[in-house]
Amino acid sequence: MSASHSSTRDLRRGDSLLSARVKEAGRSLLAPVVRLAVRLHLTANTVTVIGFLIVLIASALVASGELLWGAAILTAGSLLDAVDGALARATGGTTPFGGFLDSTLDRAAEAVLFGGVAAYYLASSPEPAIPVLLAMVALTGSFLVSYSRARAEGMGLAAEVGLAPRVERLVLVIGGIGLAGVGFEIALIIALAVVAALSVATTAQRIWHVHRLSALTRPAGEDTTRENGIRG
Amino acid sequence: MSASHSSTRDLRRGDSLLSARVKEAGRSLLAPVVRLAVRLHLTANTVTVIGFLIVLIASALVASGELLWGAAILTAGSLLDAVDGALARATGGTTPFGGFLDSTLDRAAEAVLFGGVAAYYLASSPEPAIPVLLAMVALTGSFLVSYSRARAEGMGLAAEVGLAPRVERLVLVIGGIGLAGVGFEIALIIALAVVAALSVATTAQRIWHVHRLSALTRPAGEDTTRENGIRG
Repeated sequence: MSASHSSTRDLRRGDSLLSARVKEAGRSLLAPVVRLAVRLHLTANTVTVIGFLIVLIASALVASGELLWGAAILTAGSLLDAVDGALARATGGTTPFGGFLDSTLDRAAEAVLFGGVAAYYLASSPEPAIPVLLAMVALTGSFLVSYSRARAEGMGLAAEVGLAPRVERLVLVIGGIGLAGVGFEIALIIALAVVAALSVATTAQRIWHVHRLSALTRPAGEDTTRENGIRG
Repeated sequence: MSASHSSTRDLRRGDSLLSARVKEAGRSLLAPVVRLAVRLHLTANTVTVIGFLIVLIASALVASGELLWGAAILTAGSLLDAVDGALARATGGTTPFGGFLDSTLDRAAEAVLFGGVAAYYLASSPEPAIPVLLAMVALTGSFLVSYSRARAEGMGLAAEVGLAPRVERLVLVIGGIGLAGVGFEIALIIALAVVAALSVATTAQRIWHVHRLSALTRPAGEDTTRENGIRG
């Protein structure tokens, strides 16, 4: 369930915390799964939806306190993440709708995951306020990172800068859930705090980046992005 | 802090729960505020940021249990919402960055507001789980409504369909906070549930809408929206 506009690729991919090489290695490991999906006549969009359902199930497990099972299934679901795009390319059928569905369900999956973590603390912690609010900030920051990029692309600008892309956020949160599952409760709270801080910082960075880009490329007297209507 | 792409306006604006006429009336009431801002040499972007800071203050009041004050200040802040766009037009200085900043801070303001409501329940309710999770679903749904539109616009498609645009969501939540402030606690929970349900339904509606649109306009063999990179 990961997608990217190659047409608007930015210079700063190196800022990401995981190297492209690691992702490439992960993809070659997934080749047999892609071949299986092709044999089963699954479409890329079906795989996208299955990946989302897996995250739903895993988040319910996290919410009910089954942290280790949750982390294990989330890891599997995240690997499946790379399958839909690979499958679409393998079957020659990448579509704009596929990319749209993919990134919209990616956002929904992140929200469900943070919701599952919040529900876990609400159900099991005598003092849930701090971790629940951290989960909300992490959710908000993660969303704003993606939103600011999508919105900039709607204006024809690239805004891929940032320290906390989605895969890095997922690794942190799933790692935190797993460690909490083996008794290191504090690891999950730290993971939430780190994701919250990184994603809010990335959003600020992207706003600043778009500010610079649009100052460079401002077309005189032409704008359709601030209007009477209601956005949203 | 509201903005819209006139260039990609869709057919279905009539689906919105508040008529354009009501918004028009609201804007004419704001004309003196716009004139004041012009005299004070405030830029539209400054007004956008001031509006966001007002929502931050109001949400902190809500979190600390001052629901009536919070609702009153949120109402003032939401009216200011229409000022930045009007000011930009009045001073002939609408910029793409202004629209971008406006809608990104709109999303952040919604998140801060739902976070304030969640913090209120975490601090004051013996059983905060249901309202806190409702606030998270409402936040997620509201974000997805905006994200799906921004992402579709990045593909050159319009996706403004939907029952729960931002102003309607704000009216529901601020109304709920005000009613809870005068003793009708249940009103806020109902408002959260309605926003949660409407925004999730609107997101599903937009995904379906983009599916239909892209089936109509699919360009053969050309796609840049599902790629190897990491989105977010």
